[in-house]
Amino acid sequence: MPAGCGPIRPETEGVGTSLRHRVFESVRAAGQISRIDVAKQLKVSPASITALVGELLELGLLRECTDTARSTTRGRPPVALAVQPDAGYVVGIKLARAQHTALLVDAAGKPLAQASLSCQPRRRSLDQVLVETGEVLDALLQQANLARADIACIGLGLPGMIDHAAGQMVWSPLLTDLDKPLRTMAEDAFGVPVAVDNDANIVTLAELWFGKGRAMADFAVVTVEEGVGMGLVINHRLYRGAGSLGMEIGHTKVQMDGALCQCGQRGCLEAYIADYALVREASTALDPTDATGTAPDVMLQQLFEQAKAGNEAARGIFRRAGRFLALGLANVVNMFDPPLIILAGARMQYDYLYADDVLTEMHALALNRGAAPQKVETHAWGDLMWAHGAAALALSDIADAMAEGRA
Amino acid sequence: MPAGCGPIRPETEGVGTSLRHRVFESVRAAGQISRIDVAKQLKVSPASITALVGELLELGLLRECTDTARSTTRGRPPVALAVQPDAGYVVGIKLARAQHTALLVDAAGKPLAQASLSCQPRRRSLDQVLVETGEVLDALLQQANLARADIACIGLGLPGMIDHAAGQMVWSPLLTDLDKPLRTMAEDAFGVPVAVDNDANIVTLAELWFGKGRAMADFAVVTVEEGVGMGLVINHRLYRGAGSLGMEIGHTKVQMDGALCQCGQRGCLEAYIADYALVREASTALDPTDATGTAPDVMLQQLFEQAKAGNEAARGIFRRAGRFLALGLANVVNMFDPPLIILAGARMQYDYLYADDVLTEMHALALNRGAAPQKVETHAWGDLMWAHGAAALALSDIADAMAEGRA
Repeated sequence: MPAGCGPIRPETEGVGTSLRHRVFESVRAAGQISRIDVAKQLKVSPASITALVGELLELGLLRECTDTARSTTRGRPPVALAVQPDAGYVVGIKLARAQHTALLVDAAGKPLAQASLSCQPRRRSLDQVLVETGEVLDALLQQANLARADIACIGLGLPGMIDHAAGQMVWSPLLTDLDKPLRTMAEDAFGVPVAVDNDANIVTLAELWFGKGRAMADFAVVTVEEGVGMGLVINHRLYRGAGSLGMEIGHTKVQMDGALCQCGQRGCLEAYIADYALVREASTALDPTDATGTAPDVMLQQLFEQAKAGNEAARGIFRRAGRFLALGLANVVNMFDPPLIILAGARMQYDYLYADDVLTEMHALALNRGAAPQKVETHAWGDLMWAHGAAALALSDIADAMAEGRA
Repeated sequence: MPAGCGPIRPETEGVGTSLRHRVFESVRAAGQISRIDVAKQLKVSPASITALVGELLELGLLRECTDTARSTTRGRPPVALAVQPDAGYVVGIKLARAQHTALLVDAAGKPLAQASLSCQPRRRSLDQVLVETGEVLDALLQQANLARADIACIGLGLPGMIDHAAGQMVWSPLLTDLDKPLRTMAEDAFGVPVAVDNDANIVTLAELWFGKGRAMADFAVVTVEEGVGMGLVINHRLYRGAGSLGMEIGHTKVQMDGALCQCGQRGCLEAYIADYALVREASTALDPTDATGTAPDVMLQQLFEQAKAGNEAARGIFRRAGRFLALGLANVVNMFDPPLIILAGARMQYDYLYADDVLTEMHALALNRGAAPQKVETHAWGDLMWAHGAAALALSDIADAMAEGRA
C-alpha cells in the first residue's frame, strides 16, 4: 500500500473519540444528511468521509436512503445517510429518589415506549434500587412486547458521583452504599450490557442529541434538583473532566466553613440551592403544623405557595437560593466562557429561583468582558427527557464499541 | 483519485487543531523523534503520518536528521525528525507590574538571549507599557545582533483578561486602559506579527512544551502572583474555554459579598490570596513605621519574615490565604478531576501558602473519590520560564498559520 493512501485508522482526538465515530454521531444528530454535508461539518475531506461511511455501512450502523429534502424530479435521486434503526433497541432509565423513569428507543433514538415506577423517597441500598430498576425495565419491555435479550444496551443515569469510564458509583444521594461497581452489578442483574453516568451528564446528552445541542458546538448545562449538577459540551462532545469525575459544580465551595452539604462537606454550592437546602429552612418559615412530618416535595410546594402569598420568610429563602444560583452560574461563565447555559431540572417551576433578578445578578458577578452577555435558557424537561438522555448514553456506548472495533 | 486514498486534509479536532499541526507539535515537544513514534503517540496510522511529515518537510517546518539515540554501527542509520531551527527566530515577553522579561528562541524553542527591564510598579497606560515593551525588545535584539525584521513573531503574556483569539486586552491589573486591541497595537508599534495571551496560559504553555507537560496529556496549572490564574491542558492542548476568556479561577466567587477584588467585584478567590490581598492586611500586622509608604513587594517580604519570627497576626494572614488556596484547588479538582495540578508563580517562596496543611485541606475539601489523591507539584519558576511560555505561544501561532495553510 503506497504511503498516504491507506484507510484512516481510528484516531483518538480532542475529547476522546475516533473520526469514524464522529461521522456516525453527525448522522445520528442530523437524522438524514449527505456525505458532503458530513464532510463540511467535520472539516474533513469528502474522500476521507466516503471511506469511513463505507466502513459504517458495512458494520450495519448506517444505511443509505433517498434524500427527500433534496430530491428533484430529474436525474439520479441524491443519497442521504441515516442511522440503521434495526441496529437494536436500547433503554434509558433515570433513577431518582421518588420515581424511576424508563424509555425504550430504536437505534436512531426514536422513543417507542415508556414506563415509570414510584418509590418511597428515602435513601436505600443499591441492591434495593437494582430490584426497582428491574421492575421498571420489565414493565417497559412488557408494553413493547420485547424480552431482555432484545435489548442491546441499558443506559442508567442517577445523581451523585458516577464514574462513566470505570462504571463505578462512588457516591449517590439516593443510596446508602458507597463505591460500588454499579455497571457490572447491573449487568449481572439484567443480563444486558449497561452504561452508567450521573444525571447531569445524561440530561446534557439529551440536549446534545435531541435538543438545543444539535446545532451548538459548545454549551453548558446546569441542573437543579436533588443536587446541583453540570454537563459541559466541548466541540459537540460531552466532556467529563480529565478523569471521569469532573464537572461537580454542585460541590465547588462558595463559602468557607459554610452550610452543610449532603456530601458531608461544608460550603458546597448545592447546600444553598438544592431541594434539601430549601426544605431544611422551610420549617422555620412555615406554620409548624404544616411542616411537621411532611414529605420534602410537599414541603417545597407549600414553601413556594407561601412565598407567592407574600410570606417574607419564605420569599427570603428563595431569594437567597436565587443569589447563590447566580453566583454559581457566574462561576460557570468565568471558568468556561460558554455561549449558552441551559438550566434544567424539576425546580425550574419555582420561578423565584430563575427570575430576571437571578440573571441580572449572574451578569453582575461574571467578569465584564465588554461583549454580549452569555445566553441562559431554562428547559423544564420532565423525567422523560432525562431518560431519553440515558438512552443516548447507551447508544453512544454501543457506537463507541462498534466504531472503535471493540464489538 | 480513488475514494479514501487522498491526502488527509487539515481537520478541526477536539480542542481545535489539525492533525498536521499535531504532528509538528509532537516533533517539537520531543526534540528528536521517528515517524513511527509520532504515529504511536497520536494513534494514527504510520502511512498517514508519513504523508503529513512530507508536507511539513516541504513547508520547511521540519528537517530529517540521523537518529543518534538509535544509530547502530551497521546498515542504514535510522532517520529522526526535528524542527528546522532556521525556520525563524521568535521572542517571548512576560509583562509584569515591576519588571518585563524577554527571551529570544529559535524555531525549536531553544533560548538564545534574554533581557529584562525594571519599571515603576504602578498601573499605567497601554501606550506606556508598549514603549517599555519596545525597550526590552530592542535590548534583547541588540544582544543577539538581530533586527526587528529578523523576528517571525513576538508572544506577549500579561495578567488579566486577554482574549488570545481576538487579540484583545479586555482588562489587566497592569493597565489603566480597558478593552484595547492589544495585538494590532503591538504589531503597529513593532512591525512584527504578535500573539497575546494571559500569563497563566503562557506559563501553562511553558509546562506543556518545556516542562512537565511533555509527558502528560491532561493537567492544570494554578498561578499565584499579582492575581490568581489558571491554565488547563486537555489531551496535550491548551484549552481556553468555549470563547477565549475562560479558566478565570481567580475571579470565581468563593464568598457571597466577600472581600473586594482588584477586578472591582467582591468575593473572588484572588481577593483572598493574591499579593494585594496579603499586602492590604499587612499594615495591620506590621509595625506602622515598617508599613507606611512601603512598596508592596517589600511589605510582603516583611510580612513573611514577621510570620517566620512568630508574629501571630502575620502568621494568621498566611494561614487564611493558605486555606482559601486549598479551597480554590479543591474546586479545580471537583471541576476538572486532573491527575496533576502544578502550582506556579513568584509566591511559591512563601511556604506558608503551600505547606502540607494546605494540601491536606485541599484533599479534605475535594470530593472523596475513593481513589489516589490528586498530585500537586510546586514549580517556583522565575520570569524567564514565563517568557519561554510566551515564546511557545509565538511558535504555536506560527505553526498554526503554516500548518493550516494560512501562511
